[in-house]
Amino acid sequence: MKAVGIVVEYNPFHNGHVYHAVESKQAANADVVIAIMSGSFLQRGEPALVNKWARAKMALAGGVDLVFELPYPFATQQAGIFAQGAISILETLDCDAFCFGSEDGRLEPFMLTYQFLRGNKDDFDEKVRHHLKAGCSYPKAASLAFNELQGHEDVLDLTQPNNILGLEYVKAALSKQFKIKPLTIHRIAAGYHETELSNSPIASATGIRKAIADKTNLKDIITYVPKSTKEVLQQYLTVYHSFHDWEKYWPLLKYQILSASVAELADIYEIEEGIEFRMKEMAAIASSFHEFMTLLKTKRYTWTRIQRMCVHLLTRTKKDDMQAFQEAPSYLRLLGMNPNGREYLRKIKKNLPLPLISRLSAFNDPSIQLDIRASQVYALGLSQPYQHLLMQREYGSPVIVNE
Amino acid sequence: MKAVGIVVEYNPFHNGHVYHAVESKQAANADVVIAIMSGSFLQRGEPALVNKWARAKMALAGGVDLVFELPYPFATQQAGIFAQGAISILETLDCDAFCFGSEDGRLEPFMLTYQFLRGNKDDFDEKVRHHLKAGCSYPKAASLAFNELQGHEDVLDLTQPNNILGLEYVKAALSKQFKIKPLTIHRIAAGYHETELSNSPIASATGIRKAIADKTNLKDIITYVPKSTKEVLQQYLTVYHSFHDWEKYWPLLKYQILSASVAELADIYEIEEGIEFRMKEMAAIASSFHEFMTLLKTKRYTWTRIQRMCVHLLTRTKKDDMQAFQEAPSYLRLLGMNPNGREYLRKIKKNLPLPLISRLSAFNDPSIQLDIRASQVYALGLSQPYQHLLMQREYGSPVIVNE
Repeated sequence: MKAVGIVVEYNPFHNGHVYHAVESKQAANADVVIAIMSGSFLQRGEPALVNKWARAKMALAGGVDLVFELPYPFATQQAGIFAQGAISILETLDCDAFCFGSEDGRLEPFMLTYQFLRGNKDDFDEKVRHHLKAGCSYPKAASLAFNELQGHEDVLDLTQPNNILGLEYVKAALSKQFKIKPLTIHRIAAGYHETELSNSPIASATGIRKAIADKTNLKDIITYVPKSTKEVLQQYLTVYHSFHDWEKYWPLLKYQILSASVAELADIYEIEEGIEFRMKEMAAIASSFHEFMTLLKTKRYTWTRIQRMCVHLLTRTKKDDMQAFQEAPSYLRLLGMNPNGREYLRKIKKNLPLPLISRLSAFNDPSIQLDIRASQVYALGLSQPYQHLLMQREYGSPVIVNE
Repeated sequence: MKAVGIVVEYNPFHNGHVYHAVESKQAANADVVIAIMSGSFLQRGEPALVNKWARAKMALAGGVDLVFELPYPFATQQAGIFAQGAISILETLDCDAFCFGSEDGRLEPFMLTYQFLRGNKDDFDEKVRHHLKAGCSYPKAASLAFNELQGHEDVLDLTQPNNILGLEYVKAALSKQFKIKPLTIHRIAAGYHETELSNSPIASATGIRKAIADKTNLKDIITYVPKSTKEVLQQYLTVYHSFHDWEKYWPLLKYQILSASVAELADIYEIEEGIEFRMKEMAAIASSFHEFMTLLKTKRYTWTRIQRMCVHLLTRTKKDDMQAFQEAPSYLRLLGMNPNGREYLRKIKKNLPLPLISRLSAFNDPSIQLDIRASQVYALGLSQPYQHLLMQREYGSPVIVNE
């Protein structure tokens, strides 16, 4: 059996994701699609709309065969670390290829850009440092440096978040000389940041989340998501009584920032350059998460970077915690499978170099504690009576579809 | 001018407190009554019903001339440390005497009990250790040990919380050879723990709080409190939109316990003997503060002792924090005064051995940070829009009545 891997967040799973799964399988000529999915908190520093189990269920219903969790030390991270964690798990799971969507649909620009940057590393790094010093955010500095350097025409536009991620996937695989092969397919989805829904059956997850947040019912999203996604979302409301968003965690984040000392804040992962002092000041006066973020935002920090700091603050993840587990993922946490995925797992199981976790209670390792704590904190975004329910799900068995 | 000191919590200020202030003034033949009052959190490990400013206002309207705050390292503490902090401030403020209410109204039993315990310290301590080992709580062990030892008839009943506090006041003054003289007057108030209101114009603060919590209006308490107390409570609701109680802080406490590591929990003041493990376990399943407390309660710990641990957890006060400031109060924080009190302050001001703080923003000392943090956390018990308002009050000038 041949497997193709994809790296996903499914926040929520929509028609563009069906296309990605189906086309990846075809492009790789694979029998199985394995998704590596972030857990409670996402790469851009946000709580997921619904928990990882609900998202795994949507994925299985939409054509994915196996869903694994990207552990916390890799999930809420800048593109490079996020990609390293995900691609390394796909390599461990013996995938033949991984496949990502890109605007262009050709792999050449990614390969050329990777090689170009490797060949000009010192020049590039120096230019990045220069722009950082001038007060740019890292993505801005990297993109300026890159534009100044490149002579070749067939390179990437690195101002596009999707291109940055794709490049990091390629880099993760090639720089570690993994066996896994990179593939890319043409994206038909809307732009990453597009917030308005359109007439096309494909809309960005951002747009779909906005439609969900704006209305109290889910009928407006049915053009853009599989019927199963809508059902899972409806079921989530029935069981947990709300979705998750940053504002629900704001009272806790505010409390964390005000009750911790500045030294304790500075111990938190990604908190640096004295931003802890401004955080204390702004948390005291902001009356919502959005207001807090707006007060905190400067040219030097992207919104996303500050949001990631906020996730680490919320989960109280310290620099030391991260350092201990960031080398490479040390376990394979199975969230969901269908019979086809189960068959594949059965075949590769014996040769897996990492423990396969299908029930949390059976695995008592310090490395998974960050995921557990993230879920415990994530549960607190629900009303009191439903919090414990979510943690019970966390300790349960994987989701299985079409048994 | 001659001053008498009293040690209070005023949660809220009621008719029994008017009697205490007036009678103390008379018993000491004093011109001025100075109250040392706990701040945001109380001796028994609870958030105060209303903030310290509102309680200072009630006190001034009810006949008290000066109100000072008992700093956090002394306020949320067992009787001994609470009394040491309060009596030491009254000594610093050059009070001629301090006066507390007792069931009996005579000082002799307190003096005799103090001397008796001093004379039999080793025997007493050994008996206490014995009962603690057998699984008793400290108050229970102390009371059993005392009953086994005493031969004299005119000693105290140490199962009464008010007698324990009174004895600790006497001990605080005599053991440090302070100039301040102990006095006691007959209590006419209801029992400490009485929760039902009666026909008498005196009811316990516990009963009054219960009446406030049970009904949505304040008319039922008017028999038991001065008109000014009712007005201040009503005004509090108008400005801050709610009173404070433990349940309002439960989501934050739960979050604190779940997001901290067990090592971090064990660093918190008063957390010992491995209770941090049970706290983590119970916080995950309890759906209210009351349920959490009920699950946590054992014979070894009094309800009050666990509540105090919860306050220190909520304010994130570590063992190290407390050790640094617990020797003796290092500042005098003025919360309120009337013209008579101001006159007294003017007279003693020059010879004060400690800084007199009448505006927080003018005093930037690490020792007061615990009070500020307690107020910041206390403010989070209000709805979002009123939290900042409460902190603005914290940085303002003292309350002044009848200028």
